[in-house]
Amino acid sequence: MTAATLSKMPRRASYVPSMDLVPLVLEGRVPAIARMISRAEAAYPEAANALAEIYKRAGRAHVVGITGVPGAGKSTLVSALIRALAAAGQKVGVIAVDPSSPFSGGAILGDRVRMSDAAAASGAYVRSMATRGNLGGLARSTLEAVDILDAAGYSPIIIETVGVGQDEVEVVSAAHTIVVLSAPGLGDDIQAIKAGILEIADIHAVSKSDRPEAAATVASLQGMMALGPGRTDTSWRPPILAVSSVSGNRVRDLLDAISAHWAHLQASGEMAVRRHGIARTRILGTARHLFSRKFDEGGSLDGHVEKVVGRSVDPATAARMLLGWEKES
Amino acid sequence: MTAATLSKMPRRASYVPSMDLVPLVLEGRVPAIARMISRAEAAYPEAANALAEIYKRAGRAHVVGITGVPGAGKSTLVSALIRALAAAGQKVGVIAVDPSSPFSGGAILGDRVRMSDAAAASGAYVRSMATRGNLGGLARSTLEAVDILDAAGYSPIIIETVGVGQDEVEVVSAAHTIVVLSAPGLGDDIQAIKAGILEIADIHAVSKSDRPEAAATVASLQGMMALGPGRTDTSWRPPILAVSSVSGNRVRDLLDAISAHWAHLQASGEMAVRRHGIARTRILGTARHLFSRKFDEGGSLDGHVEKVVGRSVDPATAARMLLGWEKES
Repeated sequence: MTAATLSKMPRRASYVPSMDLVPLVLEGRVPAIARMISRAEAAYPEAANALAEIYKRAGRAHVVGITGVPGAGKSTLVSALIRALAAAGQKVGVIAVDPSSPFSGGAILGDRVRMSDAAAASGAYVRSMATRGNLGGLARSTLEAVDILDAAGYSPIIIETVGVGQDEVEVVSAAHTIVVLSAPGLGDDIQAIKAGILEIADIHAVSKSDRPEAAATVASLQGMMALGPGRTDTSWRPPILAVSSVSGNRVRDLLDAISAHWAHLQASGEMAVRRHGIARTRILGTARHLFSRKFDEGGSLDGHVEKVVGRSVDPATAARMLLGWEKES
Repeated sequence: MTAATLSKMPRRASYVPSMDLVPLVLEGRVPAIARMISRAEAAYPEAANALAEIYKRAGRAHVVGITGVPGAGKSTLVSALIRALAAAGQKVGVIAVDPSSPFSGGAILGDRVRMSDAAAASGAYVRSMATRGNLGGLARSTLEAVDILDAAGYSPIIIETVGVGQDEVEVVSAAHTIVVLSAPGLGDDIQAIKAGILEIADIHAVSKSDRPEAAATVASLQGMMALGPGRTDTSWRPPILAVSSVSGNRVRDLLDAISAHWAHLQASGEMAVRRHGIARTRILGTARHLFSRKFDEGGSLDGHVEKVVGRSVDPATAARMLLGWEKES
């Protein structure tokens, strides 16, 4: 038995079967929610049936993705949104995808602490997901955590993620409403990196609106939108909102824009299009992950690697053999 | 016949079969090299056997990856390297992976023009790869282009790529020597984004060494290296070199470091480890690409999507059904 297999096994005698947690999750019991999310994150095989059941009972929440490069002010904005939503009586859930790089860990930890303060004061549920060593695949386990909060009655559910990297794009693409946060004064370099994300925004927010450079960032976003193609939904024109999370200025306007987009999805029929796209992305993302893991774990790859290193077989032919599409030589 | 299928077909009556191009590529004939790379980029099924043959005849070149965020000065550095290598009598090949975002296209085009001037003056071969609409998959076709230059006798072969995004990481991980270029004055935000790439550097270069901030960037890289884990090859300590591509100052030192790393790979036995890793990455990357394309093109996904949208099946179960690992309900 390998260390990897051992780590997937329940360790305590008092382990509550995942299926027994499901009714508690549906009642909104926080300890059961926290345990189910941990099991999704660890990809316990034992939890698979429970997660499938939870998925079937979910589907009512408005899922809002908030993305932007590190330093854009995402966590501060999310804290402000939690306070405003709680004041309006809403049961808000937050799943934060945490880049656990040793180089950025410190600063981001500080933001998390501020966010938890806001949560504790409001009854919101806030959870960070680990990005490294995530056996279930980052996108898969993050979206399962969203399902859990959804089935437990949270809405809106905010997914907060850095807008760089394929996993992060996969996660945020599973939101109904995507808010892309830009900070004033970030250079064209960062704008270029973010280009792929800017294109999928339903709402643009510019943080730190109290700074004099914020107006220039708004103008530059307007210029980019004039240049580039937007989302496939041409019936919605993404608004650009400058907000100050610190003073709370225009945070209410951002919440109104998020609600307006949700209403638009329902009224225009775009919701059906988006739900199909989300289902498609989730199935393919999970299949790709399961497929990679199978070959990473099994030894079936080793013989092919030897042949490719020895140049008796090329990588494309070896890939087709691995898939069973070509006979082994 | 779909438009996608049509676009993969040879159009001209004078089409030279790819297998007939192979001997010309091996002789180093530039028009044949250019054609083969275009066919790899377009993923012509007709070219698959020829590319497999070329792979078997390649394997002598030293492949050097040069990566860094937009604005770090990669293209200017590559131009300086081409001039220095040509002066030393080496036949250098360059494959540039071009982010074709509408937001960054302009500036990068300017760099390409400068790079081609350097190439034309030296007999080097320089080629940009399209990143959008790349039917063969970016990593796959880029590495096939490297195989083509390798089989044609070019060495070193430089892969120049933006250090962000899974495809780009896959490409640069296929190099024997990875140079990560940082620019002085870029903020911590960008450093955090780059963190994943910084960790895989064999050599750190700091551009624009004539600027006063360059020393601070060198110090910050030294600090990061002290913090984070390096590559698995613990017998090599990545040097940090400040270079000025404009004045040519210390470009020679960078070339010496690149040669020293190549000598280290041979002497330490690390080369075998790296060749295994590269083969493994190329096989899995190609398999993942072929697998995704199959389901993207075929209609086999649609029934699963309907069930997931209707919440009668969860995405993980649908993924296992798609892979044939679970019986359809």
